[in-house]
Amino acid sequence: MELLIEKIKNEGTVLSSSVLKVDSFLNHQIDPHLMLEIGKEFAQRFADSGITRILTIESSGIAPAVMAGLQLNVPVVFARKRKSLTLVNNLFTASVYSFTKEETSEISVSNQYLSENDNVLIIDDFLANGQAALGLAEIATKAKASIAGIGIVIEKGFQDGGSLLRDKGYRVESLATISSLDDGSVSFKQPTTKTKVELTR
Amino acid sequence: MELLIEKIKNEGTVLSSSVLKVDSFLNHQIDPHLMLEIGKEFAQRFADSGITRILTIESSGIAPAVMAGLQLNVPVVFARKRKSLTLVNNLFTASVYSFTKEETSEISVSNQYLSENDNVLIIDDFLANGQAALGLAEIATKAKASIAGIGIVIEKGFQDGGSLLRDKGYRVESLATISSLDDGSVSFKQPTTKTKVELTR
Repeated sequence: MELLIEKIKNEGTVLSSSVLKVDSFLNHQIDPHLMLEIGKEFAQRFADSGITRILTIESSGIAPAVMAGLQLNVPVVFARKRKSLTLVNNLFTASVYSFTKEETSEISVSNQYLSENDNVLIIDDFLANGQAALGLAEIATKAKASIAGIGIVIEKGFQDGGSLLRDKGYRVESLATISSLDDGSVSFKQPTTKTKVELTR
Repeated sequence: MELLIEKIKNEGTVLSSSVLKVDSFLNHQIDPHLMLEIGKEFAQRFADSGITRILTIESSGIAPAVMAGLQLNVPVVFARKRKSLTLVNNLFTASVYSFTKEETSEISVSNQYLSENDNVLIIDDFLANGQAALGLAEIATKAKASIAGIGIVIEKGFQDGGSLLRDKGYRVESLATISSLDDGSVSFKQPTTKTKVELTR
């Protein structure tokens, strides 16, 4: 998604060869118009999938998920990272390890908002080691819901989350895939260019 | 806001005389179309205020804030409830006590996304004791930003947050104000009716 790639190029900060900070438009400050375009792109890619519900995780997944939900005309459920006092019974839960925060948190979704009748689109802001997406998929599976696919705003293609999920058979749609953060700069995987090369062979 | 009041009447669950659960459209599952209408309503009420940025707090504030930001054409910043590993320096912080969770958390905003040039609209999902809104106002004040007002989705009019904020001079716009949760049912404050009564006197 060209608009997103330009935004990452212009505003992303490479903190290390594995950490990209996009706090100016996704993870701390949010660009609502970019989120709308991201929502449209997810909706377009999953237009024929019969999505009934979007499943994401607080906090940075919420904005892109809500915009996709607006376009697909379906509700959005966000998993919580720990139990709250007003939400204790009848939960689907999964344990998620965060390599960034170096901690395991329990994520949960009420069984009122996910069922065997659902065909779920999982959305998250980043895909790195795939632990959050796997946790969300585990929750959807516990609810006996179908998983139509996983929509990711930014995939770190040099980490193993993408292949982990695709090897399990999930359809993963990433709007921008980073191939490297080495030497302080962001390199993108260019699927369009690759296709062109194949066509001219 | 009639659409919101109807939604609360139809889907809200009264857990006690002080706790209203609206997990089906705001705090766990999110209704994207309702959020869009909420965003439009906030945008309309603050259309002439010269808002430059919206300030909210994770997680439930994000959806209404992003929709308001979309309408007002301004970025949204969400305060984090604790420091993350990739966001440690140059923070504006405030301590917020949650009566629901019975704990104090530090909320923070990077000084990159709030400045003296800003005229801020604070948005949050609930107003009860006003602690979260006060914390956000404290952060905006530390950034030397102006505060145009505070937009609240659901105000618990029987708790003291509303008067606390209004007594401090803040313009508070609540889209639905609950006057009581007694006897397991939701009663709303009806500003329209009040005005009519005054007009006929």
